[in-house]
Amino acid sequence: MATSTLNPIPARTGWSGRLSAGESFRIIDVEGGQCADLWVFCADDPREPLSAQHTRVHMGEIYPRAGWTFVTARRRPVLRFVEDTSPGLHDCLVAACDSARYELLGAPEHASCEGNLLIEAAKRDLPVTFAPQPINVFAGFCVHDNKRLELGDCESKAGDAATFEMLMDGIVVVSACPQDIVAFQPGGPTDMAVEVLA
Amino acid sequence: MATSTLNPIPARTGWSGRLSAGESFRIIDVEGGQCADLWVFCADDPREPLSAQHTRVHMGEIYPRAGWTFVTARRRPVLRFVEDTSPGLHDCLVAACDSARYELLGAPEHASCEGNLLIEAAKRDLPVTFAPQPINVFAGFCVHDNKRLELGDCESKAGDAATFEMLMDGIVVVSACPQDIVAFQPGGPTDMAVEVLA
Repeated sequence: MATSTLNPIPARTGWSGRLSAGESFRIIDVEGGQCADLWVFCADDPREPLSAQHTRVHMGEIYPRAGWTFVTARRRPVLRFVEDTSPGLHDCLVAACDSARYELLGAPEHASCEGNLLIEAAKRDLPVTFAPQPINVFAGFCVHDNKRLELGDCESKAGDAATFEMLMDGIVVVSACPQDIVAFQPGGPTDMAVEVLA
Repeated sequence: MATSTLNPIPARTGWSGRLSAGESFRIIDVEGGQCADLWVFCADDPREPLSAQHTRVHMGEIYPRAGWTFVTARRRPVLRFVEDTSPGLHDCLVAACDSARYELLGAPEHASCEGNLLIEAAKRDLPVTFAPQPINVFAGFCVHDNKRLELGDCESKAGDAATFEMLMDGIVVVSACPQDIVAFQPGGPTDMAVEVLA
């Protein structure tokens, strides 16, 4: 009998897994107030990522929420956002933090979500040079007045989870965001987890 | 004495040029009601594009407008939006039209902005697999209620122009959007032009 697998993601690090169409996974904010950057790459063409820019126009909305279907850069449905026990704030407008971001913030050796993606990509032969626009799960980044973009706080509580179902075989990468200089993670960088459901 | 160069872009096609830091160019909507997709790639590393996702957070806004500085995927300032004689609507949220888009619309052989980019990229040895998020100059795509994304009409009039200054040496690619199935170009696909200023 299949059982679920709980994969801890220590604070500031990343995780990746190869999942099959029909499998589901939950991203869990173990301690609360923490953002996870999520990417998916197609197993049949790892150059082809889940694409926020194609998904926004596909859904006619700018914030990911339960019910969304994400499509790839070839507009193929790749992921469904199935369930959400968090307050419901998620982002797909703001770039992942990266080494250039931390250099500008005066912390050139800082861990970053793009760095975590590149580590996982190297393990899995994903041809990534720059991070595609991530799905920033639990991020409270919000548009105001239909134009201003503000890095609001993560409102997720300890144990909140976002559940996604794979619509194609793919490689999933999740980064527990290490940002502790720009203050939008009231939980500080903390552990997260990915539960792959049986 | 240096003179400006006017480069016509026949309807549905693309144009590219290598420009130096300090040079400026105007994208002209010759007949009005037409969108131009704009990309820039760094001359010193053609893998590094102008990045909408980094620029949105850099500017704290979601719509490009005169006064914006665009940054690259390494957060380097690459382009400045200097002047705008159009009504001021421009987009950086909606993916370029591509062959997958037209296949879904029942027109698999249709020209596309991504296709135009790939043609120009091949001429200039740019390593492009999928189009980065373009700057959709003159596009009337608008966010409503801080969440819905609608493909509103281009409001540019004949002769309207958007002027940009290069902040680094780079390759500029412009596509006169061939979209004539989804109706957001009241001018229909028409000619555009890029004037490189002396």
